[in-house]
Amino acid sequence: MRWNMIATWKMSIDGVREGMELLRKDGDICKAVIEAVKNVEDNEAYSSVGYGGLPNEDGAVELDAAFMDGETLDAGGVMAVRNIKNPVEVAHRLSKYRRNCFLAGEGAVEFARSNGFTICEMLASSAKIKYENTILRGKGQNPLEAYKEHDTVCIIGRDDMGRMACGVSTSGLFLKHPGRVGDSPVIGSGFYVDSLSGGAAATGVGEDIMKGCLSYEIVGRMRRGQDVQSACQEALDDHIRQLESRNHKAGSMSVIAMDKNGNIGAATNLKIFPFTAGSSSGKCEVLAAVNTRGNRRIMRADDVRWEEYGGD
Amino acid sequence: MRWNMIATWKMSIDGVREGMELLRKDGDICKAVIEAVKNVEDNEAYSSVGYGGLPNEDGAVELDAAFMDGETLDAGGVMAVRNIKNPVEVAHRLSKYRRNCFLAGEGAVEFARSNGFTICEMLASSAKIKYENTILRGKGQNPLEAYKEHDTVCIIGRDDMGRMACGVSTSGLFLKHPGRVGDSPVIGSGFYVDSLSGGAAATGVGEDIMKGCLSYEIVGRMRRGQDVQSACQEALDDHIRQLESRNHKAGSMSVIAMDKNGNIGAATNLKIFPFTAGSSSGKCEVLAAVNTRGNRRIMRADDVRWEEYGGD
Repeated sequence: MRWNMIATWKMSIDGVREGMELLRKDGDICKAVIEAVKNVEDNEAYSSVGYGGLPNEDGAVELDAAFMDGETLDAGGVMAVRNIKNPVEVAHRLSKYRRNCFLAGEGAVEFARSNGFTICEMLASSAKIKYENTILRGKGQNPLEAYKEHDTVCIIGRDDMGRMACGVSTSGLFLKHPGRVGDSPVIGSGFYVDSLSGGAAATGVGEDIMKGCLSYEIVGRMRRGQDVQSACQEALDDHIRQLESRNHKAGSMSVIAMDKNGNIGAATNLKIFPFTAGSSSGKCEVLAAVNTRGNRRIMRADDVRWEEYGGD
Repeated sequence: MRWNMIATWKMSIDGVREGMELLRKDGDICKAVIEAVKNVEDNEAYSSVGYGGLPNEDGAVELDAAFMDGETLDAGGVMAVRNIKNPVEVAHRLSKYRRNCFLAGEGAVEFARSNGFTICEMLASSAKIKYENTILRGKGQNPLEAYKEHDTVCIIGRDDMGRMACGVSTSGLFLKHPGRVGDSPVIGSGFYVDSLSGGAAATGVGEDIMKGCLSYEIVGRMRRGQDVQSACQEALDDHIRQLESRNHKAGSMSVIAMDKNGNIGAATNLKIFPFTAGSSSGKCEVLAAVNTRGNRRIMRADDVRWEEYGGD
């Protein structure tokens, strides 16, 4: 019996623990992934996902989420939705349909409401205070600074039968334009999983991630026989080279992936990108992809001298 | 001097002629592609794109469009938008930004309005009559029948400097759920273009196209050295095999592509898929990808015995 999970950022650790516990009790991989993402959505402390997520430029929290079942290739998502407590649950429901699997805006909210999903105000007081303080400081003085926070939760899991699934959820860029859709709910860019090859997911500046369909590119490399870590690193490196050769300054991009056997990989163009990994051995830990002077490593977060990495 | 265009369906012929004329006058490839798509958007006779497009289940026309510049990889799109006369123009404008390049729903309409794009009612009387007649016949008796019409216009062009661009526009599935987003505005699924490799675009059942990120897959195959026609046919065949092995009955899917040298390809799982091709030789013609008893060919539409292909 062997099962695994990998998830973006440290914030996913409690969710991954919950998901691993469900798998230990012989739970369904889809349910384990969804419960893990919901754990992050429900935590007000995380300012980029679900409740507590930072609002758009109008002061409203707008959320993107998606779900994909690697066994069936069924995928669903919601884009730019307000007032949905757990967008990943709605994405999962939509993934089960043959048509109308991705819904945006009011139409998606209406679907959630009429199908019994919890509807509530998603602007937490902590997020409202941050929004008001930023607006007071002078909205738009440097909009790209405002866009700095964009930590999507992405969770990829695999059960002991080799069935894989992936869930993602985010409130997107702080102070984004209303209606903005990032890479997260976009299949192939923010996520992709196929139990026969593996899964990948991305976090960072969605507009830059989308230009290279990063998640599909990583899964494609695994499909063609590349190992999971090389697939992550080379897909990211090649994409950044492509962007730079077109005069784009690549924004921050980080990826996680898992191959069909449960091996994991990660890569980033940040100095350090923390992520979470859990396995059936019982271990559930924070790791980090580290870039120092061209030296790339995956290391245990406890072994990282964080003070070296400053603002990243 | 050599320039080329390829576009989905017969309805694109006038648009392609207009685009080719712009290229002959040394016009910009981006402008040529946009004007070609706008020609289709503006024609009420085409019931799946722009004005004249068939409405969603609430009776409202909701449009998806996208634009990608193969030289810069800049991409933008609008999803599930109402009342925008030429969605592809808004997508083009959005593609020029570093952030907020894809907008959905009301936020996208607000962007279009405040940036001076024409806002108007997009439900043509012909579409309203068809909607009312269908509802009268009994909405939902066979919803998948209602979803039959989904002919997206996709146009890929290349100028004599080798610069490529792609534009897509659609009203999506007739009687779709409000807010539904198909493959068309989803980068990698509905479209992808890179002047260094080539471009591809798709039309058909978006939910099935998205499961395989078909456009990115085709461009990836060209990037790895496959010729454009094999890339189209093999990407489509492999994807249909993948879907069938997961117990999906693949919906209709058709693809067009152009390599970096201007050579074109197309493939379909319909009996026949007409498309339009124009070149600097002055020729602008309707071709068809034909499937008969395992025999696949690209032929001139004039040589097709259409009566053999019945309802397709």
